[in-house]
Amino acid sequence: MTITSTASPVVISPEAFLAHWQGHRRLTRRVIAAFPTDEFSSLSIGGMRPFSALAAELLGMAGPTTHGVLTGNWEEYAVSKATSQADILAAWDDTTAELERVFPQIPIAKFGETVTAFGQWTMPVHDLFLYVIDNEVHHRGQGTVYLRALGIEPPHFWER
Amino acid sequence: MTITSTASPVVISPEAFLAHWQGHRRLTRRVIAAFPTDEFSSLSIGGMRPFSALAAELLGMAGPTTHGVLTGNWEEYAVSKATSQADILAAWDDTTAELERVFPQIPIAKFGETVTAFGQWTMPVHDLFLYVIDNEVHHRGQGTVYLRALGIEPPHFWER
Repeated sequence: MTITSTASPVVISPEAFLAHWQGHRRLTRRVIAAFPTDEFSSLSIGGMRPFSALAAELLGMAGPTTHGVLTGNWEEYAVSKATSQADILAAWDDTTAELERVFPQIPIAKFGETVTAFGQWTMPVHDLFLYVIDNEVHHRGQGTVYLRALGIEPPHFWER
Repeated sequence: MTITSTASPVVISPEAFLAHWQGHRRLTRRVIAAFPTDEFSSLSIGGMRPFSALAAELLGMAGPTTHGVLTGNWEEYAVSKATSQADILAAWDDTTAELERVFPQIPIAKFGETVTAFGQWTMPVHDLFLYVIDNEVHHRGQGTVYLRALGIEPPHFWER
């Protein structure tokens, strides 16, 4: 973020925003990798989805949202087809590279426009991206409880 | 957020940022209130703190961080002294009012300054506030697993 010399806004540049997001994504990747392979796809607490399904949801949002914002073409929302820990990690890395390539192409004015993501969620683009990140932090927090329940110390929240 | 007419930044106004934060805090309040009183202060999964302790941590950060940023006076970091569900909820509401009063007094230029919060965490003010919100989303996500483990459906993540 920088501060503009005009008016009174606090400013976050697209570069800083992407760096913030990728920092969260690096942490989430470590949480995914910290699971024993079987429990990654099977452990449930209180009827909740296993962390593999939560990660597949996050993958279904990050890349497709960024593509949709850039192109205006929205597929129907769908979770990632990757299910195993190895496939999820590979898809995670693909998305990391994809975001680095696609996100910087989004015209600055686009962030202030209101879009309907995946044909059903209407909001300004900046709020949409914040939502995608918040949703990742939310589900990753849930994953850390799964890890604790397995007796595994989660990666530190403050390390990105 | 609005878009400035200069340079290329995406802009979030302090007003929009506070509204985003208070939306998250309303949701966290509903998560706190959703716990049975006893389990709020006692339930642990995998050795983790009960949600009362997580909420006390969030209370120890929100108001004191905002005051510290405004005044430059930082106490040593401490969790809230409130422990019961009723006291935590009352303190939560006090903090809500406090943020509405104090946050708008922060001069805009301050958001770009680097501070050392509570004598130990050095970062730009905008990153500090983002960290405080991310930390709340993280711990609230953990709290939703506690609720599920109790057979209680958590408040919807997307409702603020």
